Amino acid sequence: MASHVQNCRIWRDVVVFDGLQTLKGPQAVIIEGETIVEILPMEKLGGTHYNDYQNMGSGGVITPGLVDCHTHLVFGGHRAEEFEARLEGVSYEEIARRGGGILSTVNATRQASEEDLIESALPRLDAMIADGVCTVEIKSGYGLSVEHEMKMLRVARRLGELRPVRIVTTLLGAHALPPEFSGNSDGYIDLVCREMIPEAARQGLADAVDVFCEKIAFSVAQCERVFEAAKAHGLPVKTHSEQLSNLGGTASAARHGALSADHIEYLDATGIEAMRQAGTVAVILPGAFHTLRETQQPPIEALRQAGVPMAVATDANPGTSPLYQPTLMLNLACTLFRMTPTEALAGMTAHGARALGLTHTGRLAAGLSADLCYWNIETPAELAYAVQSGRLIQRLFRGELTHEH
Amino acid sequence: MASHVQNCRIWRDVVVFDGLQTLKGPQAVIIEGETIVEILPMEKLGGTHYNDYQNMGSGGVITPGLVDCHTHLVFGGHRAEEFEARLEGVSYEEIARRGGGILSTVNATRQASEEDLIESALPRLDAMIADGVCTVEIKSGYGLSVEHEMKMLRVARRLGELRPVRIVTTLLGAHALPPEFSGNSDGYIDLVCREMIPEAARQGLADAVDVFCEKIAFSVAQCERVFEAAKAHGLPVKTHSEQLSNLGGTASAARHGALSADHIEYLDATGIEAMRQAGTVAVILPGAFHTLRETQQPPIEALRQAGVPMAVATDANPGTSPLYQPTLMLNLACTLFRMTPTEALAGMTAHGARALGLTHTGRLAAGLSADLCYWNIETPAELAYAVQSGRLIQRLFRGELTHEH
Ligand SMILES: [Zn+2]
Ligand SMILES: [Zn+2]
Repeated sequence: MASHVQNCRIWRDVVVFDGLQTLKGPQAVIIEGETIVEILPMEKLGGTHYNDYQNMGSGGVITPGLVDCHTHLVFGGHRAEEFEARLEGVSYEEIARRGGGILSTVNATRQASEEDLIESALPRLDAMIADGVCTVEIKSGYGLSVEHEMKMLRVARRLGELRPVRIVTTLLGAHALPPEFSGNSDGYIDLVCREMIPEAARQGLADAVDVFCEKIAFSVAQCERVFEAAKAHGLPVKTHSEQLSNLGGTASAARHGALSADHIEYLDATGIEAMRQAGTVAVILPGAFHTLRETQQPPIEALRQAGVPMAVATDANPGTSPLYQPTLMLNLACTLFRMTPTEALAGMTAHGARALGLTHTGRLAAGLSADLCYWNIETPAELAYAVQSGRLIQRLFRGELTHEH
Repeated sequence: MASHVQNCRIWRDVVVFDGLQTLKGPQAVIIEGETIVEILPMEKLGGTHYNDYQNMGSGGVITPGLVDCHTHLVFGGHRAEEFEARLEGVSYEEIARRGGGILSTVNATRQASEEDLIESALPRLDAMIADGVCTVEIKSGYGLSVEHEMKMLRVARRLGELRPVRIVTTLLGAHALPPEFSGNSDGYIDLVCREMIPEAARQGLADAVDVFCEKIAFSVAQCERVFEAAKAHGLPVKTHSEQLSNLGGTASAARHGALSADHIEYLDATGIEAMRQAGTVAVILPGAFHTLRETQQPPIEALRQAGVPMAVATDANPGTSPLYQPTLMLNLACTLFRMTPTEALAGMTAHGARALGLTHTGRLAAGLSADLCYWNIETPAELAYAVQSGRLIQRLFRGELTHEH
């Protein structure tokens, strides 16, 4: 057998969701090495051209490897006690007095070594990989000092070396005000702009810069300073914005060419128009909506009408979305926000990749990275309809088979 | 080494949730063969009595094997297309015209052979086993004729032989009115009482009898006829009641000594008092509440005050709860219904077993069946707080290690 086919593989008679839509009729998927060669309808396969290719399976569904474009996967400690205390009737004041909330995660993260953070993040990352994820964005934002933000980003990069998964890192220095800057949020933004961003850029630790634009976090003006600093260092930006109120952070971010604006439950028509013009992706995060029992729905229909691409992500974090299961978000996006299964799946594949500025993954097309999931289901909609483990038959990352069930 | 210790095993320094509460301080769990020998605080372990026991692990959390006391796990087809069509804006009328809804599942179930039903149920059951379940109740109710209801119950029993799991079967003939009895629901109840229940009892296929008491299903008077027929054949009863409105089916069932009343979002004080007096378990089903986007919460605080035991289950079914992940229900019960993690866990262990009339599983105590889960977490509350696969280190069913991670 010719050596050129050693890494040549084929799936036959599969239903293909290509990242944007489900292709009509049974398909063949052909890869060579790390790359997708072609996707073609079975009736066009013909002849014997692929006869000596390794047969990977037939029947079932193939999707791109999932892309989780918004997570806070690296952190110290967890907040199960706080979750329990709230449900047992302990007041927010008492929880704050006990040191709960985001600052408890900041403290635990600062105290943790890089090895501690890697060890605690790996089971969460492994759970996501077992669920079909091939690309995971990880934000800093629990260090809130140059030293500890760089530590978080180094840990995120290291996770991508330890597991067969693509890690995209985001510097989220402007996540919360650290206690040592209490009453001096402008001073902290100075630190983010003058030290954190330059240091992350210098070390190549960040692929993008993010901010939390909200009354309880940073103002639009402060976020704009961060955007400018990021731009000066050649880093794209994104936002947590319009989650709890409408401050206009999304429109501002779009004007700064943001890759994505995330949460956006309170987004208005002005914000949507700014996103449309800028090509900014809307990242829909139903996990936090669920956990916080929010009632303000993101403007799905308006985004749909405007043609703004919608991504869906876990927002995995210890406080507002301790949900390390990307496929669960497909169900939540449909059930809570009335997205269609096709929109939800595109949100966790093609549009998730776009929210990260990636063009070589998130879709199934000739020439792209062979990042794919092979599922034991009949129709892609089942991934959003049912919550059920064990349906992932194979996961390939850059052509490497990393999971077989 | 003495042969009597061959099957003797011990976990040391574990946090134990015994089915009702988390025991104070680190514990040792000792089993012999199929049976729990004792749970005792580490400081009382002392001496060398268990030195030659097989060491199964130390650290982490041990809970009883989970009990899912309400499922419809056996059925033909699935309803992903219907889920998708609704989200794409197809009207209920159009979906009904296409043959959607519960009757589509009835048709698919009637057309399926026993082997078909086994083959389609096994992946769902396997997903639940991988999530830590040791006991699963399975209802009939998509056959709606003597022949097809008995077929469903035989399939359920067979699943328990094919996998290391305890299956409890429930005859739910009075689930929906089959089309051939349209306009003659009393005639169908005649069939349930005079043929289905006697046949299931004669063949030993049902452990209990259930009804759906609702305007869209059967009246209280009709359900009472079913309860009487079940009683005449020595079978305990349970209900789907007060899910969509308050008809009084729960109080009626309690007066008939029901093991459980399930859903009960619309339950009133009279119903709660009847349950308290009868010792009927309230089965809380957050999966259907989530899927149907209901807003009427079950009366958790009133049930708590009355001391009515609350179970939590998946209600796994293709229409209103296609969620085959018991631990997800722990999160939903806490987040949607404000149950505490302890209540949710008790609901899927001790109280789940009680809802099935089982006394030898669902708790960790001397003499009970060695059905247990060993988790890689620090505190039992984490099971409700975070949704994350891969935390189950070991699952034992009747002392047999069936899962090791
Ligand atoms: Zn976030
Ligand atoms: Zn049910």
